[in-house]
This record gives sequence, structure tokens and C-alpha cells, in this order.
Amino acid sequence: MSTDETLLIQTGRLVTCDSLQATDENPLGASDDLALVVKAGRVAAIGEVTNLAERFPEARVIDHRNGVVTPGLVDAHTHAVWVGSRGREYALRMAGADYEQISKVGGGIVASMRAVRAASLPELTEALAARLTRMAALGVTAVEVKSGYGLDEQSERRQLEAVARLGGRRDLPAVVPTFLGLHALPPEAQGDRDGHGARCLQWLEGIAADGLAAYVDAYVDRSAFSVAQARPLLQRAAQLGLGIRIHVGQFADVGGAELAADLGAASVDHLENVSAAGAAALAEAGVRAVLLPVASFTLGQSPPPIALLREAGVELVVASDANPGTAPTESLPLAMALAVRNYGLTVAETLLGATRGAAASLGLSGGVLREGGPADLVLWNLPHEDDLIQPWGGPMAALVLRDGRPIAGALRAPA
Amino acid sequence: MSTDETLLIQTGRLVTCDSLQATDENPLGASDDLALVVKAGRVAAIGEVTNLAERFPEARVIDHRNGVVTPGLVDAHTHAVWVGSRGREYALRMAGADYEQISKVGGGIVASMRAVRAASLPELTEALAARLTRMAALGVTAVEVKSGYGLDEQSERRQLEAVARLGGRRDLPAVVPTFLGLHALPPEAQGDRDGHGARCLQWLEGIAADGLAAYVDAYVDRSAFSVAQARPLLQRAAQLGLGIRIHVGQFADVGGAELAADLGAASVDHLENVSAAGAAALAEAGVRAVLLPVASFTLGQSPPPIALLREAGVELVVASDANPGTAPTESLPLAMALAVRNYGLTVAETLLGATRGAAASLGLSGGVLREGGPADLVLWNLPHEDDLIQPWGGPMAALVLRDGRPIAGALRAPA
Repeated sequence: MSTDETLLIQTGRLVTCDSLQATDENPLGASDDLALVVKAGRVAAIGEVTNLAERFPEARVIDHRNGVVTPGLVDAHTHAVWVGSRGREYALRMAGADYEQISKVGGGIVASMRAVRAASLPELTEALAARLTRMAALGVTAVEVKSGYGLDEQSERRQLEAVARLGGRRDLPAVVPTFLGLHALPPEAQGDRDGHGARCLQWLEGIAADGLAAYVDAYVDRSAFSVAQARPLLQRAAQLGLGIRIHVGQFADVGGAELAADLGAASVDHLENVSAAGAAALAEAGVRAVLLPVASFTLGQSPPPIALLREAGVELVVASDANPGTAPTESLPLAMALAVRNYGLTVAETLLGATRGAAASLGLSGGVLREGGPADLVLWNLPHEDDLIQPWGGPMAALVLRDGRPIAGALRAPA
Repeated sequence: MSTDETLLIQTGRLVTCDSLQATDENPLGASDDLALVVKAGRVAAIGEVTNLAERFPEARVIDHRNGVVTPGLVDAHTHAVWVGSRGREYALRMAGADYEQISKVGGGIVASMRAVRAASLPELTEALAARLTRMAALGVTAVEVKSGYGLDEQSERRQLEAVARLGGRRDLPAVVPTFLGLHALPPEAQGDRDGHGARCLQWLEGIAADGLAAYVDAYVDRSAFSVAQARPLLQRAAQLGLGIRIHVGQFADVGGAELAADLGAASVDHLENVSAAGAAALAEAGVRAVLLPVASFTLGQSPPPIALLREAGVELVVASDANPGTAPTESLPLAMALAVRNYGLTVAETLLGATRGAAASLGLSGGVLREGGPADLVLWNLPHEDDLIQPWGGPMAALVLRDGRPIAGALRAPA
């Protein structure tokens, strides 16, 4: 297909994820047998096929009457700029090793730091591009990507530059860069967490000035950084006009939720441990909770307090956490399957959390199918949205469009 | 590449899974930096690259020095001939519905039965071929496929005929057909399990005479068929020269393990519930245990008693259980990841159970890389076998060869 061809897509079922189409009984705004027209990168129209065929006689017809169509999936939390392998560490963890033993074999975030520091910009870019290509095949049209394996200014910037290099690639998912210098302590910091925080604050100035990050993240937890260590960096990010995302409560509740609410963060991520007061603060401030069920699965953790978050009214997002240590995956659909099975999310919560909610947390206009909106969408080799939350473990997308152009799969001729 | 081209594959690491290469410290018979030559569908040689390059100057060199090579994965338990969707049932089960509620919405095996009975042979064949193609992309080179959604003679045969039609397809994984008429009770049996058993016994004669099955399976469990109901069918299968596989102990131990040991079955499958005596009987009779961790994951079950099976000396196999109800997956790699995380299998147990052990349970010569053996192998986009048991949730195979010919992926030029 030519890239600017007008398409009329006949669907067996269209899931808009549009709040304007949703009702209590139909929270996903889904309808059987609708068609949609993709023109100039946008959703030009949604309606009955005969009506649309008259209005857009020039459109090429795509027959997907056997399948469901959804917005493109949006992965709101990944550490996708990595190289090397932490397979040994994973195998040891599965065999029951604790962090100390893993550290002894050179594992943990510092292992990825060494690999990333040794990698050139082209190497980092190539690894990220390969990963984004595979993510696209799984139905993903936009991906947040964090730094945090560089942990010195040059290497953090190189990770973000790899993201920036792929920002112009229309054949891959869209990327949103996040600066996560406050991810772990590099060995040269010699245990001085305050000092590393101060250095991240310095690096942020240049990163912001060069437009290398849209968000700033910090890992606030018992074994990571304190609220006091993270706050100055995140406050400066806000002053610079950047958004804030925070790793909160993965292992212990040290007040990260309250910090996020105080700073008006776009998201708090992980949240296996959060108090009722923390959840209420998040809801009050409109901070979204990004759930990462692949990480808690590989770590053998209990789920976050989903009922508490629901009751407080916190909006839930589901993301892959793609990283070589605790979530060796590239699959947002796998995270969705685990969110349903292990966290007890409903189909609607899961799908909204991987589309509209994720996009909103990243300040993107996608994640819904609406006339005039971006034509980021997936034609699934599956008949219904209920099939999407199952643990397929492989690509079930027939065709993935970003801004109306295919980034994975192939068009089938009409029947 | 032409189909009979000789290939010299340089590997970063070669995992043979060959017992002749294995030691206590190296149970997978793995070595760094070996090369292997594929010629006329077989592994012609394994050794140092310079030596092999001299011996096979005609060979095309494939550079996979950045990755690991293993035998092709063998999926020893699938119900892959199905059509339709049981997505609603899955969503209801995840929301806490029990079997009765699922039955009320028309779910369960009978739902798939209705869809399969309504499908033509070409439709069944096309659905299976699409599934096998996706399995190949995940690194699978041989697949056992059960009937059991027909539940009348014509429909059971049509399922097996779909498998037979693809038996000649060299561009797909090899298929091994299993007759599973004793899977569930069709509505027309009106609750008469003995009668259904007697009818399966009649159907078996023609199925065996026409060469439509290599194995016969039966679902022996509390809510399925008893040992007494299954025994005549399985005994007749043995008389006819067919192998035996049995679904045993998924929900309760009703003596299936002892039956399998008594009949010299090739495998017992599921085994969430088995006694020490049952495990000892299996070990004594050399019956392999096929573990199905995706099913126990979706059903929220506890793992099989792995320590007990290990202690008894039962050989462990890992399979996908691909089916639209309890294991909506096509991914043996996902089953491997769950076997490690949820069942506590080691990397070696898991990989041997998805290659050599699985192949042996199916009477296949594959599952190992050995000079003179079949060239069924996978070049992984991963550096080490430790990386293979992680929950990637997507295809990580760069190239998959069956009998020396590519069935998935593409050859990269040497660097």
C-alpha cells in the first residue's frame, strides 16, 4: 500500500476506548460491524460501511470482518535501551538467589550499566530499534523509554540520544524519552546517594536544554532513593516544563505516592506497596498508577492493592516494564494477560490502561479511536476484546498502523 | 537460500541437549564458540569453525556468533485444531466464575466442539496451519496435535485429517496426531460416559486403519473419565500398535498414573495431583510427565508436586497445552518461562523437557543436536540458554530450521 492511501477498514468489532462512546455497560465504547476510514494519517470517519463507502469512494477496502480492531497499544513504562544479557542473574533468581547473591555474580542494574557504558550510540540505537520493531509486531504504537543504565552524564545522554534518533522513524512506534538518572547508584558514587542526586540535577539542565527528555523519573524506594533525595530533581524538572513519573512502592512504601501527588506527577509506577492515604492523595491529584505485573511476576511478589486503588478512584495503567532484570519482556500484551490473571483487572480496565490511560499519562493524543484523531490502531487476528487479555505469548496482530501507516503486519486483500 | 544448500553455522554458544555431550556440571551439553554444518537436512558435523570450513568449503557461512543455537523446540501436548473463540469464557473465569457459570454462557469444551463440528476440513486445516506458522516463529519444529473437539466419529476424523493434510508441509513444524475422543462427553451422549467410551473404541478401528493417529489420549479425572472407562480404549490402542498419552490428575488423583504405568504409556500429562506411589510407578515404567504450566496458571492452580516427581526419577517434559479454554497460547517458550517461575524447574530441566524429552515422548529422533541427526534447530536472538526461560512474550528466534530448511525467520549475511 502506498503510505498515504485512504483505507476503509471493515471490522467485526470496533473497540474505540473513547470515553465519548462509553457507557456503564460498554466501558470500552465497542460496537459490532462498524467500519472506519483512515485518511492522511487520521481517523477520517467511523460508521456503517455502506455509508462510508459512498463518502470515500477512493478508499481501499480492508476486510477485517472476522476480527476486532482497537487503538494501538501504548506502553507507558519501559527501560528499552539496553544491551547485554542478565540471563544468568534471572536463572539464579528463579533458583531462589537473593539480591546479595545476584550482586556477587555481577548482576543487578549495575550489570546493565556496564554494558550500556561500553556500547556506542549506534549499538544502543540498533538494540532499541530491534526491540521497537518486535513491540510493533505485538500491537504497540507508542513506547515510553527511560534512561537509567548510563548513570553518568555521558552515558545517560547517549541512551536518550538513541531514543531521539528513532524519534523520526515513522516505521516504528512513537517514542517518549524519560530521564531516569536516579535509577541506581553507580559504583563511582561510593554509596553517596545525595551526591548522585546532586549530579543528576546538574545533568538535567543540559538534557532539558537539548530537548532529550519529555519526563523525569526517579526510583523512590527503601533500597533506592528517598523522597528527600528525589524531590529536588523532580521539582527542577517541573520548573523546566518536563513531566514527572516516579517508581514508587515496589518494595516498601516510603512516601513516594504523597511526593507524586504533591508534585502533580503524570504517573506513579509499580505501587505494590501503598497506603490508603497515599492512594487517596494520588486520586485527589489525578496521578495515574502504572501497574507492572511482569515485574511482580518474575520477583514472585504479591499484587498491588488493586481494590484500594479502585476505591480511591486512581486511574490504572498497565505497562510492560521491559527491562533485562526484573521484566525480561517486550510484550505489553503479556503484561495485560498477567494484569488480568495475577492482579484481577477486568478486560475493560486492562485495555483502557494499555491504550487511553497510558496515552494520557504520556501526554499523547492516541489511545482512542475517534473521528479526527490519529490513526494508531491494530487489526487483531482475534474476534473480540475478551480474547486480547489472554496469555498468547506471541504476536496476534494482523496489521498495526501508526499515523495511518503500517508498522507491522501486512494488509490482506478483501474477501 | 536454496533448500538444499550446505550451511556452516558459527555460534556464540551451542546447546546440544545431547546426553552423550552432557556432564553433571553441563547437563545441556553446551559449549561456547562451536560451529555446526547442516547438509542434506542433517547435522553433518559439529566442531571448530576453521576445521569445518576446510572440510566443507562449499558451505554458506551463517554468522550467529552473537547468539545461542539450540535444537528446535518440540511441543508434546497441544489441542491446536480449533476454531471459534472462548474469550468471553476466559474473561468470566478471570472474574471468578466457576464451571457452572461458564457452562451457562455456553463455554467449556462443548463450545469448541460446536465450532469444530460446524467447520469444514479446509477451515480446520487453515486454522491449524496459521497456528503452526506462528509456533514456528517461536522456535518450534515439531508439534503433537490432539483431536477431541469433534466428539463424534466424523468430526474427530476431520480434525485428524486436518493434521494429516499438514503432515506433508515441509514449511511448517512436523506434526504428530493423537486421537482424543475421550476428551469430554458430547451432549448427544446424555451423560452416558460408558457409552461414549464404547463409541470411541469403535471409531478407533477406522482411525488406526487409516493411519490417522500415532497416539491415543484420554482425559482421566474426577470430572472427566474414570480409569475403568479409559482402560479398554487405551489397551486397544496398544494392541493396534499406537502409543498412549493420558491426561492425568489435573483436578484429582483418580489412579491415572498407575493406569499409565500399567499400560506403558509414552506420557502422563498435567499431573497437578499425583501420589508418591503414582510417581514411583511412573518412574518404574519409564513414563514421562508432561507439565502444562500455562493451564495451571490460567486456572489459578498450585503446581504439580515437582520435588516428588524429581525424587521418584520421573523425566519431566514441558508443553504449551495450546487450547482455547485453559491455555489460550501458542507459545512453548511462554510455557517454559512459567515452568521456571511457577513450577521451579531449572533451566536445564526446562530446556531438556522442551527438546530431547518431548521428542522422546513422541518417538521422534529430534530434540538433540548430534552429528547425523536431523537439522532441526533454532538460532536465537539471545546469547545464552539462561535467556531462553524468560517471559519474553514474543518471538526471539532469528532463524528456525526443520530438516535443514528455514520454516521461520531469515538468514543474515555474515558480518
